[in-house]
Amino acid sequence: MKKYSEMTRDELRKEEKNLEYQYEKYMLMNLKLDMSRGKPSKAQLDLSSEMLDVVNSKTDCHSEHGADCRNYGDVAGIDEAKKMLGDMVDVPWDQVIVYGNSSLSVMYDFVCRSMLKGVLGSKPWCKYDENVKFLCPVPGYDRHFAITEYFGIDMINIPMTPEGPDMELVKKYVESDPLVKGIWCVPKYSNPQGITYSDDTVRAFANLKPAAEDFRIYWDNAYCVHHLYDDKQDELLDILAECEKAGNPDMVYEFFSTSKVTFAGAGISGCAASYTNLDEIRHQMGIKIISYDKLNMLRHARYLVNQEGIRKKMKQHAEIMRPKFDLVLNKLNEELSDLEIANWIEPRGGYFVAFEAMPGCATRIIELCGQAGVKMTPAGAPFPYHKDPEDSVIRIAPSLPPLEELKTAMEVFTICVKRATVEKLLSKEA
Amino acid sequence: MKKYSEMTRDELRKEEKNLEYQYEKYMLMNLKLDMSRGKPSKAQLDLSSEMLDVVNSKTDCHSEHGADCRNYGDVAGIDEAKKMLGDMVDVPWDQVIVYGNSSLSVMYDFVCRSMLKGVLGSKPWCKYDENVKFLCPVPGYDRHFAITEYFGIDMINIPMTPEGPDMELVKKYVESDPLVKGIWCVPKYSNPQGITYSDDTVRAFANLKPAAEDFRIYWDNAYCVHHLYDDKQDELLDILAECEKAGNPDMVYEFFSTSKVTFAGAGISGCAASYTNLDEIRHQMGIKIISYDKLNMLRHARYLVNQEGIRKKMKQHAEIMRPKFDLVLNKLNEELSDLEIANWIEPRGGYFVAFEAMPGCATRIIELCGQAGVKMTPAGAPFPYHKDPEDSVIRIAPSLPPLEELKTAMEVFTICVKRATVEKLLSKEA
Repeated sequence: MKKYSEMTRDELRKEEKNLEYQYEKYMLMNLKLDMSRGKPSKAQLDLSSEMLDVVNSKTDCHSEHGADCRNYGDVAGIDEAKKMLGDMVDVPWDQVIVYGNSSLSVMYDFVCRSMLKGVLGSKPWCKYDENVKFLCPVPGYDRHFAITEYFGIDMINIPMTPEGPDMELVKKYVESDPLVKGIWCVPKYSNPQGITYSDDTVRAFANLKPAAEDFRIYWDNAYCVHHLYDDKQDELLDILAECEKAGNPDMVYEFFSTSKVTFAGAGISGCAASYTNLDEIRHQMGIKIISYDKLNMLRHARYLVNQEGIRKKMKQHAEIMRPKFDLVLNKLNEELSDLEIANWIEPRGGYFVAFEAMPGCATRIIELCGQAGVKMTPAGAPFPYHKDPEDSVIRIAPSLPPLEELKTAMEVFTICVKRATVEKLLSKEA
Repeated sequence: MKKYSEMTRDELRKEEKNLEYQYEKYMLMNLKLDMSRGKPSKAQLDLSSEMLDVVNSKTDCHSEHGADCRNYGDVAGIDEAKKMLGDMVDVPWDQVIVYGNSSLSVMYDFVCRSMLKGVLGSKPWCKYDENVKFLCPVPGYDRHFAITEYFGIDMINIPMTPEGPDMELVKKYVESDPLVKGIWCVPKYSNPQGITYSDDTVRAFANLKPAAEDFRIYWDNAYCVHHLYDDKQDELLDILAECEKAGNPDMVYEFFSTSKVTFAGAGISGCAASYTNLDEIRHQMGIKIISYDKLNMLRHARYLVNQEGIRKKMKQHAEIMRPKFDLVLNKLNEELSDLEIANWIEPRGGYFVAFEAMPGCATRIIELCGQAGVKMTPAGAPFPYHKDPEDSVIRIAPSLPPLEELKTAMEVFTICVKRATVEKLLSKEA
């Protein structure tokens, strides 16, 4: 097929008619397909069904160190859950705190605490006359940006590179502006690009010399073990160890969960941090809660046990996820490569494919998809304030639909990409 | 036995020696008993063991309205859990939001949100030059006071009466001072006195005309169904309905949980509020979390079902709790009534007996108990800033120890009460 950029206006008009015809066929099918959220599929949830049986009316409900997990107590979690989660992210277990089912709510809570109480005795962020600021590598995770937006924290876009965030820019902001208090990171198989931060990037983070004493890296290691392949797996340096080495042990909070290991809605989550940070965190926890759900911690610790148990489970997930990613990428290659109207990254893990359309086309593509019954993450979502400066990035989330549905959804998607691009080209030349 | 107030110095000295002798006997027993926290006993936790079986690898995990409870979604909870909790507190289910295992953390979160974002558009509490204020009926729940203390909210003591908080004083503060933003209430079988607010008290609350538009009643209905007796049960007016009637529908947040119905550490919690409040609460939830643990909601809804299921379960709890309360009250009567050196309230429900020693004696009593291996809630705990102005209130929590241990603990306690009182009387007269 001829590249769109090389087509005459007449050829483009003909292509447009052809695409409208193809699109109408799908309109008639009354589709209801969803590629909008990183939700695991039923088949993935089924993988952990048996976890529901490991704690029952006949089993002992005591933790290793003798706590009755049904009762109050152990605000920072039970040892075996700390060990299992520590194993998952390669962090010493005594630097782990175990929470409830949502790491997002832990991050929310950390921002909240810093707003009202500061960090290790610093001035509470809500007490500044100006808004404090967070750096936001883009494209990124919409729910991170929603938290900082909710609290009126100014967000600054940092472009992503194939190695992670543009560290020169990060360094410039962090080291010059004391109002820059944090940065949102998804360092492994990033949301939505699937990029893993290089060793140089991690070391550059660890060696930052922040202007603000209470600057913190929010290291959301959500996809730490979420590989798609057995042979091609990314490795991520341990940020806690690197910060320690660099003499900045307190500069990072790491977050993680089993949401995409066991159950998205009923997993356990955790954070890891320096001992000094942990003291502050535990003090606040003692005010906020008596204990998180230790029975669910027990379920997870007994079911996943350790790194090996987690690895096995993630291999099962990969077997379900890989064909979906393959399908998405193949479809993009087949339909769009020759046209040279879009770019995308082939990730080795995580939950998303980041698709970059011709500037000014993302909103229209998603609108066309929606009208044909294919739900996509809204345009702009991966950017602070929902504003994609180029209107070009689209997050494709292939996990939820079964393969057959995904195939149809991707057919619709690629047609919509082409149609929106042709429209754009025609409007430009008019 | 002669009243202490009628004893001569010599008689008191003799009694002191006698008490020291009795106390030493218990010292030799190396006791390790705990009457410090309102933790359910093992026997009570065992009552709900079978709840762990109602959701397993073989059961369907979908909610009534078709949500897969293992996955993300339904931020405000599943319908059947709303219905069950609504049934528990007699509130329409569509006014209920279901949370995780801790109602305390919900209250913390509500205070936090108001600090940073205000209430329904009001000025955020953290933006005032002066500290905002909460009213604190005393004695009250130490963990409530810890939250307001943590956020630097000034706390004002409001004396409790047999009908609930002194409503004249409440009215005076709430209606004259726009910095008064809230009041902590445990309206039924209050912690620690076991007092249930009278109908007049509830109506007086509902008819307050606050100086602050963002004043809220924090109505912690923790012991709503926690009766000790079949025949003598307190009734509490529905504050939501009363506020609605009085034209103040938004003035109250009600909190509740199954912590002392099923598992203290692995229950579900909820809040109920006006539709206007719910909108604000849900908006914030959407920022904070994708969903709470719906599998645990499903367990609870399927296991407890409705009011009747809850009633049956609470009857089983009462059969375990009643003998413990009887023992405590009998022991206090036997050992202390004649001496006229203390007061206490005989509660019809809840988790505590509030004991009022002679002024200036509580700290010493608890110290003596501690030395003899009987752990009590620290003196001052039921008061803001841990300051009991009279140093007289002691919270007795009889739920955790088995009956036999409780008997010993109460023997030690009553000896310590007598000994501390005699010491006080002797020191006064010196």
